[in-house]
Amino acid sequence: MFELDSRLLNDCEILGKFKLCHVLLMRDANYPWCVLVPERENKVEVFDLDVEDQNQLQLESTALLQFLKSEFNADKMNVAALGNVVSQLHVHHIVRYEKDIAWPKPVWGVFPAKAYSDEALKQLTTRLCDGFKNLDLNFQSK
Amino acid sequence: MFELDSRLLNDCEILGKFKLCHVLLMRDANYPWCVLVPERENKVEVFDLDVEDQNQLQLESTALLQFLKSEFNADKMNVAALGNVVSQLHVHHIVRYEKDIAWPKPVWGVFPAKAYSDEALKQLTTRLCDGFKNLDLNFQSK
Repeated sequence: MFELDSRLLNDCEILGKFKLCHVLLMRDANYPWCVLVPERENKVEVFDLDVEDQNQLQLESTALLQFLKSEFNADKMNVAALGNVVSQLHVHHIVRYEKDIAWPKPVWGVFPAKAYSDEALKQLTTRLCDGFKNLDLNFQSK
Repeated sequence: MFELDSRLLNDCEILGKFKLCHVLLMRDANYPWCVLVPERENKVEVFDLDVEDQNQLQLESTALLQFLKSEFNADKMNVAALGNVVSQLHVHHIVRYEKDIAWPKPVWGVFPAKAYSDEALKQLTTRLCDGFKNLDLNFQSK
């Protein structure tokens, strides 16, 4: 049975699910940062998915990138599948600004995560979930 | 007219081209590291490509990841489109080992690039280009 990796759950809020992927929000107020996790067991690399799922991941990832770029008026989107620590296949989608604290470096390992206030986290979660519902990706909020 | 960004050319060897993407090798002997650059002008984000090109990039990227994972017996592949410094759309494909110097961190900004010897670079280039010719991606070496 598929279960989200406990280390992802420790670092992220669950927002909901598209057709294939769980949608998580990284608890790091330094950057709006979503993570897609295909609901498939024992997948590590993108190519471990069957071709249909690869295409669906691409569809969901691209729509998420476009939404985040537009909604947050990003200077650049960063997208990456790394998985050196958490092997469960997951893809990072990060809004970057030329004025963010890590720019132009990639975000990993540069600064510790900055906590959201309860209020900010609630507002952001609502904003994201409302937006996802308009994406034609069968978004179901948690 | 499309031209490869001069900073990519400064850091990489040109290996050749698949149907859509130029294939570059990062001059960093710490990790076998290829970069795909779609031959399309003024593209920054993956979703700036038209859908047909997005699909072709996905096809070439996935085939490259599978080839590199197998050929170099990687412990993990890292794939990322960042572009905070060089905005021309390009996608990193990096072979990672649990014994590499940056593991488990992402490679960017951790260690300076390590030069290849002329002989090692020549051997690796030949090995990669020979492999790419078997990928059914219309690889044309430089």
